[in-house]
Amino acid sequence: MKLALAQINPVVGDIIGNTEKILQFIERARSAGASLVIFPELSVMGYPPRDLLLKPRFIEANVQAVARIARACTGIAALVGFAEVNTDLVGRRLRNAAAYCAEGEIRQVRYKSLLPTYDVFDEQRYFEPGPEVSIVEHQGQPLGVTICEDLWNDEQMIGRRLYQREPMALLAEAGAKLMINLSASPFERGKQPFRGRLFGNQARRHGLPLVFVNQVGGNDELIFDGASMVLDASGEVIAQAKPFTEDLLVVDLDGRPAGRIEPYPQDIAAIHDALVLGTRDYVRKCGFKKVVLGLSGGIDSAVTAALAAAALGPENVVGVAMPSRYSSDHSRTDAELLAQNLGITFKTIAIGAIHHVFEEELRPHFEGRPPDLAEENIQARIRGNLLMALSNKFGWLLLTTGNKSELGVGYCTLYGDMAGGLAVLSDVPKTLVYQMARHINERAGRAVIPEGSITKPPSAELRPDQTDQDSLPPYDVLDAILEQYVNEEKSLDEIIAAGFDADVVQKVIRLVDTSEYKRKQAAQGLKVTSRAFGIGRRMPIAARFRY
Amino acid sequence: MKLALAQINPVVGDIIGNTEKILQFIERARSAGASLVIFPELSVMGYPPRDLLLKPRFIEANVQAVARIARACTGIAALVGFAEVNTDLVGRRLRNAAAYCAEGEIRQVRYKSLLPTYDVFDEQRYFEPGPEVSIVEHQGQPLGVTICEDLWNDEQMIGRRLYQREPMALLAEAGAKLMINLSASPFERGKQPFRGRLFGNQARRHGLPLVFVNQVGGNDELIFDGASMVLDASGEVIAQAKPFTEDLLVVDLDGRPAGRIEPYPQDIAAIHDALVLGTRDYVRKCGFKKVVLGLSGGIDSAVTAALAAAALGPENVVGVAMPSRYSSDHSRTDAELLAQNLGITFKTIAIGAIHHVFEEELRPHFEGRPPDLAEENIQARIRGNLLMALSNKFGWLLLTTGNKSELGVGYCTLYGDMAGGLAVLSDVPKTLVYQMARHINERAGRAVIPEGSITKPPSAELRPDQTDQDSLPPYDVLDAILEQYVNEEKSLDEIIAAGFDADVVQKVIRLVDTSEYKRKQAAQGLKVTSRAFGIGRRMPIAARFRY
Repeated sequence: MKLALAQINPVVGDIIGNTEKILQFIERARSAGASLVIFPELSVMGYPPRDLLLKPRFIEANVQAVARIARACTGIAALVGFAEVNTDLVGRRLRNAAAYCAEGEIRQVRYKSLLPTYDVFDEQRYFEPGPEVSIVEHQGQPLGVTICEDLWNDEQMIGRRLYQREPMALLAEAGAKLMINLSASPFERGKQPFRGRLFGNQARRHGLPLVFVNQVGGNDELIFDGASMVLDASGEVIAQAKPFTEDLLVVDLDGRPAGRIEPYPQDIAAIHDALVLGTRDYVRKCGFKKVVLGLSGGIDSAVTAALAAAALGPENVVGVAMPSRYSSDHSRTDAELLAQNLGITFKTIAIGAIHHVFEEELRPHFEGRPPDLAEENIQARIRGNLLMALSNKFGWLLLTTGNKSELGVGYCTLYGDMAGGLAVLSDVPKTLVYQMARHINERAGRAVIPEGSITKPPSAELRPDQTDQDSLPPYDVLDAILEQYVNEEKSLDEIIAAGFDADVVQKVIRLVDTSEYKRKQAAQGLKVTSRAFGIGRRMPIAARFRY
Repeated sequence: MKLALAQINPVVGDIIGNTEKILQFIERARSAGASLVIFPELSVMGYPPRDLLLKPRFIEANVQAVARIARACTGIAALVGFAEVNTDLVGRRLRNAAAYCAEGEIRQVRYKSLLPTYDVFDEQRYFEPGPEVSIVEHQGQPLGVTICEDLWNDEQMIGRRLYQREPMALLAEAGAKLMINLSASPFERGKQPFRGRLFGNQARRHGLPLVFVNQVGGNDELIFDGASMVLDASGEVIAQAKPFTEDLLVVDLDGRPAGRIEPYPQDIAAIHDALVLGTRDYVRKCGFKKVVLGLSGGIDSAVTAALAAAALGPENVVGVAMPSRYSSDHSRTDAELLAQNLGITFKTIAIGAIHHVFEEELRPHFEGRPPDLAEENIQARIRGNLLMALSNKFGWLLLTTGNKSELGVGYCTLYGDMAGGLAVLSDVPKTLVYQMARHINERAGRAVIPEGSITKPPSAELRPDQTDQDSLPPYDVLDAILEQYVNEEKSLDEIIAAGFDADVVQKVIRLVDTSEYKRKQAAQGLKVTSRAFGIGRRMPIAARFRY
């Protein structure tokens, strides 16, 4: 049997555009001789549609789109993800569904059984689980059609079974000869090898080959990495689509390999590609062409600029140096050198004169109090205002350059360096930013990011001779504590017991807990670890705790 | 039987402080002769704890707190809300639970069956439903103990049954003679009369009296209004606790009335009291004493200042006028008059000099382009910077003064007038801001809010002779469209069919849809309508749709 895995990059909500894309992929699959083409989860609307699902007219439009797609299914069948109205009188109003379209009509509809409601997922907000599972007949072949989470109820891999129901086992019992999974499985660091093991387990446990069709593309915080794959009944990967780009992978299930096996990049390279895709798609899907960012001469803005240039082309990136009285000479030269190396536009706007007038105007109101964070933040916010002025005037999206370590402990200024539409590195800890800088230079085969930006002590340069380590522990210590506290939900005691200095741990945890109000107003980020500061982490602000 | 309804205002996460409060209320209830005292849902941790529930050490601490509370239960029994670890191997890790404590120990634990996962609620993210329901014996009396949503599966009232299970009916069948509900039911406009009808229905349907114990207080976006109540089997309210404040309501179920029946304010007065409570609790629970806000002379900042003065005392409110070259004389005089009327501190910082230097520095970069929104936003962001400088220097929380209508259509400046920690009016449409101003003056018996602020045409004063209606339809039209589009999820076609001009509706919907990125970074708001721009509305940003 010849199948096509249609790994598309939809725009969330754009039912008309996504339908056009689906029709094109059907046509390509038919031309390639596939008898069945499979699309990702909720492919008509793009994943995650979030509260668009609460709009009845949106649901109607998505149902009409599937009907239109079905009419195009002649000489080929298609499995397409969509949202269907729940016809039961009790329960949530929708089901997360897959339509089996053949001979010009919707022949079967199957439903997602397991609805992830954790981390970034909110599916029980919208959907009722499918009432039961049953096979789909495709040209005499019994298929077990599942949707994303239906594959993941694996206590060996996940540590706990979250759901009573076992859709995979039930479909195997019902006689399925091939498992098909429509997915929208977002990238995170280390997930692809994990997927390989989990899917291999599932294939072996049920003794059935497995086809996993993933969405690709960035949708707000989530980056879908594609890499759709086919595994045989022994759990071996016998075909794999390209990562981080659209692909139509045609496979012959009887072949070995069944089709192309595209390589998946290693750790840091995968994170790089994810951030490039996430940046490109956020900028483009928001309707922007160009971006602007502040260049401090430091490593965060350098890496952000390099990723943006890779995502959008250097001609679409504008870097702005905004030196102050506290800026070092190397900051300006490193910023300019970076811009030259990348081939991006470079501008300089000194903030000294503006800063001076702010000080004059505020002096009578500051009542002779000594300088403190207030004075530092004023400078950061002048820069935010200048960058937003350029953004507003020329329609450039402002990229924020802060990293996850800073955002974690609140070492950043609201409306200052936190200003912007997209925070490219907000889920990249500082130690990983250094690795990324080295990786970017290795890829380029030259020091695109100036060595000085990598090796000098990090500093916000908001007062004389300032360095980050005046306020924070060394970044390798900070990042290790943040990993345990934020990503792993370890407690104060557990982290100290793991060998960290008690005072340092207490300070870091206090900083994390008291800067929720900043993260509440942070720019959209891109998730690349198991836990980002985004929709998957929902903390109270007006709260008091220490755990 | 003598019962006590312990309507407490917990701090989210503050298990130690909340436990102290619970112990004090137990003591008071015992002194008043009650045999059972009932606390709200998750009372040990405060509602909503959100992702604090993912911290194992936090769960341990909450379990230990309940054990401590149980030891204090001698001569009286208590029902206390807490989170318990799910001992089943399959399913989510926690249950939303009520402990029946008596004779110094936890005698029974009962679980929430229905887990709201819609609007602002995320309970299926954390909890597994209770495996079954059964009665609790209190001094020979069979009680049906339920938690919040367990009461609300009412198709007559809600329009749809969301859940298969009927915990109320099952408990009635099991022989319960009294229904008790531990709640954390947030305020919204019109909800209290609705609660009365819904609870009345439930009491009548099962022929049982009903005790509803609500949380009170503001926790981030949510304002819990208290007004705990007791209904008899005919559905009549026979006791009601105070709204918007802590209360211990002791009732004798055999009496008519059973206890005090405290009045609940009418519509606009209830919204007023909710905003005052929400502001006070957000500021205090975040650890602040004073607030600062910009006073433009307009109605939004005037109403915000009046609410803040009511919440915190005028001595804790600082108003700052920041006139520009475009500010009218009446703006300055109205702002100052307001401050005098309220008795708050008043400061003036002119932005002209700073504005001028910004223009000078940006002129070469703006390349001779005509003035547009960029120039307007610069002024708003200068003001944001000045207010944040005062906030940082003196530790005053900055209040944002924008209303729901502006936030809906993006008629506001990120990092400018949107800067601040709390947006008091972000769920109050402009037309309701006018009503609130009148209401505030009526309560005071004098024109606290200057008549000029109420009657002049609204203007952002960011360019010469600007008024809001240069850019927006009249506010009564705008608010009616926003109500249908945002709160009711009506479609473009439906709103036009309701009698609005098609071009106006299209424009408003386009403005709403394209300003999600602003709301992503908006300050914490206070929810007072059925749908706020907050955690209960989760829209994609990089999306394309028109429904």
